[in-house]
Amino acid sequence: MRYELYYWPSIQGRGEFVRLALEESGVAYMDIARGSGEEDAGVPAMLELLDGETVERPPFAPPFLKAGKLILSQTANILQFLGQRHRLAPAGEAGRLWVHQLQLTLCDFVDEIHDTHHPIDGSLYYEDQRKEAKRRTAKFLELRAPKYLGYFERVLERNRSGGTYLAGARLSYADLSLFQVVDGLRYAFPRAMQRLETEIPRVVVLHGHVASRARVRAYLASDRRIAFNEDGVFRHYKELDRA
Amino acid sequence: MRYELYYWPSIQGRGEFVRLALEESGVAYMDIARGSGEEDAGVPAMLELLDGETVERPPFAPPFLKAGKLILSQTANILQFLGQRHRLAPAGEAGRLWVHQLQLTLCDFVDEIHDTHHPIDGSLYYEDQRKEAKRRTAKFLELRAPKYLGYFERVLERNRSGGTYLAGARLSYADLSLFQVVDGLRYAFPRAMQRLETEIPRVVVLHGHVASRARVRAYLASDRRIAFNEDGVFRHYKELDRA
Repeated sequence: MRYELYYWPSIQGRGEFVRLALEESGVAYMDIARGSGEEDAGVPAMLELLDGETVERPPFAPPFLKAGKLILSQTANILQFLGQRHRLAPAGEAGRLWVHQLQLTLCDFVDEIHDTHHPIDGSLYYEDQRKEAKRRTAKFLELRAPKYLGYFERVLERNRSGGTYLAGARLSYADLSLFQVVDGLRYAFPRAMQRLETEIPRVVVLHGHVASRARVRAYLASDRRIAFNEDGVFRHYKELDRA
Repeated sequence: MRYELYYWPSIQGRGEFVRLALEESGVAYMDIARGSGEEDAGVPAMLELLDGETVERPPFAPPFLKAGKLILSQTANILQFLGQRHRLAPAGEAGRLWVHQLQLTLCDFVDEIHDTHHPIDGSLYYEDQRKEAKRRTAKFLELRAPKYLGYFERVLERNRSGGTYLAGARLSYADLSLFQVVDGLRYAFPRAMQRLETEIPRVVVLHGHVASRARVRAYLASDRRIAFNEDGVFRHYKELDRA
């Protein structure tokens, strides 16, 4: 069975967390909305599942994943599913719930990162909420980013299996997601991250570990990896980035 | 085994979704931070698990649930766990993932509801971000609330098992959470909800169904149910509520 991923074709966004898990698993998948020319591919195929009146269990928003007859949405839900199937999460209940809990905390972090440039509403341009964005981002960089990053540093420190990865001794989807968050923060806030990274040595090492895994490295070097840009979750606006 | 719930003692907040699942299940639990006089109870007991240096798998924030040796956090993660144990979710994989997906969407909705009164940062008082709150809430009531509520209406409409509940023919934790969201929105935005509810008849009926279940009804009438107030997620500020 080949998975079908549905996500906006021009951004990493929340779909990137699913892409990373699919790539690290080495499974076959189609990135449907990026399809070229095939009759049933492209953004219309995605919108059909999103808005179509015959979909019994409609997603609220992309990303969603088709796995046979299943249509799954919500990033953390998709990752939980893929994690079980492709050994990107512990098999036991306690470990599985722990990795999911970490992922949900990462998803909260991503929501807050998104809202630094969109504190009022997603339907408005950044330029129309710039003033509020400056105020929110200042607080985010002062309080929220250190709190989240410090939390994951602590989790690594307390991992009795070694602390290379967040949970136990093996890579999980939460590690892939933490890699992506650090990567995105470096893009969005390079000056602030220089300061913040001095406090989170283990998180920095984890980012490097993940980036150097064979499949991740190959993916990042491929044209399947969309470049960061100012339509995604992680956006670089120089005026928001304070050291 | 008696569950231990850890959450702020004076608000419903995100802990309320867990309280509702515990109450509907009829299981024994202690609301630890609301403990009175016992040596190991109260807010300090909660902060010890949150900040204590010996906790191997620390929560990022309340609520969290202790179940034997397990300490679980993240509302949706706790509910997934309770749902499996106490028949508040389907047993099969597809149904289980679907209910979790709905819960994660409800959690996103709750985050957006929270940010109507705190669009800049949680560390600031509402009064210090009132201007931004007015702008964000106007967009929320115009676009986001109808989008989320309309989504759940559609889910009920398409449920081939009858449409009393969100998934299949039986109550799930997602139904309890949707009840709570509607209840909270009615408290926070009574004028806006009068308008919004005309478009979501099935959601309104579900709210009534859940409220009339014996255990929920008994809980809501008890002093275990904390009243809505202006420290929680659902806050009533007259100036934000537009018809």
